[in-house]
Amino acid sequence: MKVAARSHVPAFAVMEVLAAANARRAAGEPVLNLCAGEPSSGAAEPVRERAIELLRSGDLGYTEALGAPALRSEIAQHYARWYDVALDPGHVAVTTGSSGGFVLAFLAAFDVGDRVALARPGYPAYRNILVALGCEVVELDCGPATRYQPTPEQLAAAHADGPLAGVVVASPANPTGTMIEPDALDALVDWCADHDVRLVSDEIYHGITYGGPASADTASTDDRAGAATAARHRDRGAVVVSSFSKYWAMTGWRLGWLVLPDDLVAPVDALAGNVALCPPALAQHAAVAAFSEASYAAAAANVATYATSRARLLERAPDLAWDRVAPADGAFYLYGDVSGFLRDAGIPGSVAYCERLLADTGVAITPGTDFDPAHGDDWVRLSFAAAPATVAEAVDRIVAWQDGLRRR
Amino acid sequence: MKVAARSHVPAFAVMEVLAAANARRAAGEPVLNLCAGEPSSGAAEPVRERAIELLRSGDLGYTEALGAPALRSEIAQHYARWYDVALDPGHVAVTTGSSGGFVLAFLAAFDVGDRVALARPGYPAYRNILVALGCEVVELDCGPATRYQPTPEQLAAAHADGPLAGVVVASPANPTGTMIEPDALDALVDWCADHDVRLVSDEIYHGITYGGPASADTASTDDRAGAATAARHRDRGAVVVSSFSKYWAMTGWRLGWLVLPDDLVAPVDALAGNVALCPPALAQHAAVAAFSEASYAAAAANVATYATSRARLLERAPDLAWDRVAPADGAFYLYGDVSGFLRDAGIPGSVAYCERLLADTGVAITPGTDFDPAHGDDWVRLSFAAAPATVAEAVDRIVAWQDGLRRR
Repeated sequence: MKVAARSHVPAFAVMEVLAAANARRAAGEPVLNLCAGEPSSGAAEPVRERAIELLRSGDLGYTEALGAPALRSEIAQHYARWYDVALDPGHVAVTTGSSGGFVLAFLAAFDVGDRVALARPGYPAYRNILVALGCEVVELDCGPATRYQPTPEQLAAAHADGPLAGVVVASPANPTGTMIEPDALDALVDWCADHDVRLVSDEIYHGITYGGPASADTASTDDRAGAATAARHRDRGAVVVSSFSKYWAMTGWRLGWLVLPDDLVAPVDALAGNVALCPPALAQHAAVAAFSEASYAAAAANVATYATSRARLLERAPDLAWDRVAPADGAFYLYGDVSGFLRDAGIPGSVAYCERLLADTGVAITPGTDFDPAHGDDWVRLSFAAAPATVAEAVDRIVAWQDGLRRR
Repeated sequence: MKVAARSHVPAFAVMEVLAAANARRAAGEPVLNLCAGEPSSGAAEPVRERAIELLRSGDLGYTEALGAPALRSEIAQHYARWYDVALDPGHVAVTTGSSGGFVLAFLAAFDVGDRVALARPGYPAYRNILVALGCEVVELDCGPATRYQPTPEQLAAAHADGPLAGVVVASPANPTGTMIEPDALDALVDWCADHDVRLVSDEIYHGITYGGPASADTASTDDRAGAATAARHRDRGAVVVSSFSKYWAMTGWRLGWLVLPDDLVAPVDALAGNVALCPPALAQHAAVAAFSEASYAAAAANVATYATSRARLLERAPDLAWDRVAPADGAFYLYGDVSGFLRDAGIPGSVAYCERLLADTGVAITPGTDFDPAHGDDWVRLSFAAAPATVAEAVDRIVAWQDGLRRR
């Protein structure tokens, strides 16, 4: 019987690494897992307590398709707090994680056959969701000269090849951790608005930043985003995708949101009622407590921990001796070019690098092929969301392992 | 800026009824809500207790894309218990409600432009999801002669007009509550297998049945499904969609599952990782307790309550004097043809019927137009998932209101 051609999503190489890591762990050998883009802390106490109250006595039935009014209101206020942007709760759509947000935003904005541009390297689900929905993906090769972020010039060139319907940007980005500065975001928004191209801005790592207000020095006292938001450009058609997964460490709760321009509110509402009914009700009601002072403080403390890990990682960068390292302005990833080492050690590519690293040292990291089909064989991604001691130990092992192979 | 053509989902007429009902309630006037397809009981105690334990000390991070292994295993065992069908947990994919299951099943099985057949009347989200995903929907006009269910003859006729890629069936169905008997299901499976047409079987109301083992007489002691499952035909390409929402009364938890044929396991796994990442983790871990004896017993007690409401409703059917009433073999809906009354009372259609009924009596029910674009103006759907006293009071009011309008 027929299987849909659009279901042929490329397999993630990291799944092989994780399977090998699990087998290793099952055999009693320790694994240092630096694959996962997942905070280990879990949701803050106020969120858990609210959820327990609700389980004892609350109504956990369907909510409105766009989310519980109280949560939409809290999210809108969060934009005033972090960005000084005034949002009406009616502009906010609560979604089933950012994943659910991308599906809804893409369905509302893009038809079958529409061309949508993405940065390469980038989060692979953008590409895979768009392809599944029948869109044509246009990959923009983004390198160190533009901090791995797309430029209006690249958009113009792609648009000349065939009209673009949209572009997806991410700041801080996965896997690079690079950010789009406010001026650069303005320039992208201007170009998009001038050419009727829908800008979709992935802001799920906002708040986890190291150069701005939420830097290592200030994360414990300042809970602002440290990043520019496209929500400021809602009236020019921009869409924001965000999430409770990263800053609030609520990955498994599957809760995110969209900030929508006026023209997409009704379409997203209608689509959401059909493709999702509503986001998880318990998570929604509990997430209201994510905007308490105690929850913001817990999140800021997590960011301070990531900052410590990042600082130690950057100290060891000379010893890692990777050819290029993307500037991790935010998120919790280090994306590095290991092609020089691969040549020296006679290892054919990043997938083999990750397989051998795990087998030899117990350190699991992610091959770049998952993020960049063109150049990913030269790159690896290391997540520093794990505990600082784990990250430090892993880096020691990587350095020693590389040195051993280079000397041969 | 462009909004996608595929986002133009028809609005649900029931949303207008619910908005009017909310306005009425806000004005201090009582409303008897018989719109919602939602059990009022909520999740059973063991499920809530498990969730509370997890919130105190559990890991609520991402699970595997296809769901937590322990839950997949329990779901597989449920098929042995209810249907005497042996399933490997590897055939089960946990999904974010049945909604998430439909999106994944449709993406895995159907490409853009593929023709997929549906019964009319039927649950509108099938049609709306398929259209959003770029498929062509072929509506099969299903009436009382076939218990509002499609037949192989109808499929053959539609297939002759242009090859079908799939068909979606539901038993018990929404809005009619009618079921597909085991022989009829076999015939549909045979026809589909012979013509390489993918059968997708919506079984979310299984367990809520009134003619089979889980009838009014036996619901409190027998927790079997009372319905034939397409999981028995997994090896012939059939897909089952099911849910914790209805029988286990866990609507807002957003948890469902698919039973997949071998050829769709890997595609659904790959798609799920991209479009959803994973279903809600807390719901998954807690739902393991839905398969405890205490949870089955709580669900069976709910079914016994629906059976009481249904029996009282059917006693009053002569007083309602609707022209045709679909046989509610299962689920908790009564779908009735009010066209004779509409003519007598000079009311233009079912939307106006529902608006006036609410305004005059405070009883909210759903116009048939949401389920049947062709004939829905003649029909209304009444949900008896509410408390029996509420349902009885609502029917008294409907009968008196109709009698008053007929007499004029």
